[in-house]
Amino acid sequence: MASHGCVDWQFSGSDAAEEAAAASLGTYSSELFALCDPNGKPILPPRSESPETSHTAEKAVVKAVICGTGNAYAPSIGLPVARRAVAEYLNRDLDNKLTGDDVFMTVGCKQAIELVVDILAKPNANILLPKPGFPADYVRSIFKNLEVRRYEFIPENDFEIDLDSVREMADENTFAIFIINPHNPNGNYYTEAHLDQLARLARELGIMVVSDEVYRWTVFGSNPFVPMGKFSSIVPVITLGSISKGWSVPGWRTGWLALHDLDGVFRSTKVLKAAKEFLEINSKPPTVIQAAIPTILEKTPKEFFDRRQSFLKHQVDFAYSKLNEIPTLTCYMKPEACTFLWTELDPLEFLNIEDDQDFCNKLAKEENLVLLPGIAFGQKNWLRHSIDMETPILEDAFERLKSFCERHAIIGEASLKNVNGVN
Amino acid sequence: MASHGCVDWQFSGSDAAEEAAAASLGTYSSELFALCDPNGKPILPPRSESPETSHTAEKAVVKAVICGTGNAYAPSIGLPVARRAVAEYLNRDLDNKLTGDDVFMTVGCKQAIELVVDILAKPNANILLPKPGFPADYVRSIFKNLEVRRYEFIPENDFEIDLDSVREMADENTFAIFIINPHNPNGNYYTEAHLDQLARLARELGIMVVSDEVYRWTVFGSNPFVPMGKFSSIVPVITLGSISKGWSVPGWRTGWLALHDLDGVFRSTKVLKAAKEFLEINSKPPTVIQAAIPTILEKTPKEFFDRRQSFLKHQVDFAYSKLNEIPTLTCYMKPEACTFLWTELDPLEFLNIEDDQDFCNKLAKEENLVLLPGIAFGQKNWLRHSIDMETPILEDAFERLKSFCERHAIIGEASLKNVNGVN
Repeated sequence: MASHGCVDWQFSGSDAAEEAAAASLGTYSSELFALCDPNGKPILPPRSESPETSHTAEKAVVKAVICGTGNAYAPSIGLPVARRAVAEYLNRDLDNKLTGDDVFMTVGCKQAIELVVDILAKPNANILLPKPGFPADYVRSIFKNLEVRRYEFIPENDFEIDLDSVREMADENTFAIFIINPHNPNGNYYTEAHLDQLARLARELGIMVVSDEVYRWTVFGSNPFVPMGKFSSIVPVITLGSISKGWSVPGWRTGWLALHDLDGVFRSTKVLKAAKEFLEINSKPPTVIQAAIPTILEKTPKEFFDRRQSFLKHQVDFAYSKLNEIPTLTCYMKPEACTFLWTELDPLEFLNIEDDQDFCNKLAKEENLVLLPGIAFGQKNWLRHSIDMETPILEDAFERLKSFCERHAIIGEASLKNVNGVN
Repeated sequence: MASHGCVDWQFSGSDAAEEAAAASLGTYSSELFALCDPNGKPILPPRSESPETSHTAEKAVVKAVICGTGNAYAPSIGLPVARRAVAEYLNRDLDNKLTGDDVFMTVGCKQAIELVVDILAKPNANILLPKPGFPADYVRSIFKNLEVRRYEFIPENDFEIDLDSVREMADENTFAIFIINPHNPNGNYYTEAHLDQLARLARELGIMVVSDEVYRWTVFGSNPFVPMGKFSSIVPVITLGSISKGWSVPGWRTGWLALHDLDGVFRSTKVLKAAKEFLEINSKPPTVIQAAIPTILEKTPKEFFDRRQSFLKHQVDFAYSKLNEIPTLTCYMKPEACTFLWTELDPLEFLNIEDDQDFCNKLAKEENLVLLPGIAFGQKNWLRHSIDMETPILEDAFERLKSFCERHAIIGEASLKNVNGVN
């Protein structure tokens, strides 16, 4: 048969996604796992394990599969029963009620983030993103050439948003401020008073608030979780969510965005129209799981979430205590939400560690342990530690981390004076 | 509480997806269904009904849900077991074998199409698309500002590709020719000899062949189906597929693209790299269904497909015979694949029908019957008729169509001389 060799093929691949792909969490994560030795100690965190799934969710999907209720192409904006169920679920906390028409179903919370970025991408427009933050919004902004300005937090003040910095960086081309609440990786969630301040500031600036609330079911602090939608009488709000984190079903790819649009602002500014158009031409979440959404949201017993939250609280307490034995890493706040510790790293306290990326590379190579570098979340010289594993595994992970840090630390007074729990 | 009224909101929605969304099949379809009278006769085709799903597929997904085998974030290029299973499945027909590394999992075949378009979108590049054709590739090309040139078919010659027209429209900026095989909406599939000719022409032009083979399991002609991958020693080929049509699981959103890259051309032209980068930043198919793919592909009994194919053959025969009673519509070929009839409409034979869109609008309003206009597939004054419904419903649909055509036809000799089955 003929060979390709002598043909001058005309086509070539686009590099439009190159920069964005390099900044994605998946790229950081898989590069670190690739540094581990498959023949060495067990690689941590275990990649294949995940927490126990909600049986209600499992049964609901099984029923949808067997009864064929989700066996059709859904409308591009989502299955009506799923949209209504999300609206009713969110309404539990809201005075200004949503209807199914205000909700669109997406391929996980990630596509909901991407969709909001796509809708807002215009020449000269900019959006305010958290630093650190979950990078899906950042990655999409790079891809869409949307200018990103990154606001900061005050670690010493329970990682509240630095509202002064927000005010300073916004200008007449700023379209939105994105928040993550509960915040990954900071591990906190915001008080009603703080969200009220944020809403008033956004109103003053003329921008919308986009709130990623995918971690709202993994909260174990003493305050109740307050959704941003509560402030929709002050400012137009888009909230994003999915079942993946709350119901421990990371591969099910079913999320949503809800438009809290009290006075028709999203309609008059064509945000609603753009959302529908982008959904029309992009991927859809599996109908077979959308069909299970009403049962999943309505019927999951409170005990399921209680059990999960108390497990996470226990693991956070344990991990935080182990971190006390590692004076070279600083944790400003014991998390009250999500599934991570977030620590600051000072390369000067180490003999041969250049920065967070270098720390994580060497840790993976030497200890078969993967932490994600802060730079993956937009903040250099921090580290994100997963705590969502059983205690013996968690203990093993922190023992390896301790041993690694001791091996690389500059020994002397400097390293001993730094203690955890400064706040 | 404050009102939004007095605020000058700075943000507005992007119109980047407006034109593309308007060209999507979903938009055409939902506008037509919206013209039907919900209080009138049953709306046809029934929107909620779909053919019987493969029990093997149902059981495989139920098992994946219950056992939690798909309960994790999969790598962006897909779950390794699913990628291997697709490679092995496709290898049944191939001399040049694929490995799992050559396969990427996507959110249905639709995302696979979109991905290939995205990879190829470059300033000045153009691609050759079928006219008529399934519009996902066209819609994506509009969105990506990729120039589209549309090649035609020869209805009188079993709807073979007009290879002369392909040769004429290709130039040094042509990257690929997309084919749909079996072809929706033409309803045919290509012989080995025709595909061989196409492969040699593509090689001569220096372009790749992208083959959408999502309908390969709904073939009921006398020839065997020949996949384009068979010709990968002549030309680089990308084949696209999914389980939706073959296993009757339209809402499951799990498909793939396979790179048949005999001499590393896709690697050297950076197509492989671009595919990985785009997958990294875009939506992923549900892991829980990816995990079921090996069982679905390996264990579904041949009888399932035989039953489906003989049902479709029966419905095509029936619909084609009913069409003989409607002399104002011309069907050039009784389909041998897919689930549609494709007929030509001459507006001059009707009193008050402007074109295919006008025909479909009036038919929906007067008869609660939805046919899609050819323009939705890029070809004006044709009609696509679904035949995938039970006989009594199909009979009802064609009775309504006949009654509509008789009501609107110009009565006289002109309308009687035109008979179906010219070929």
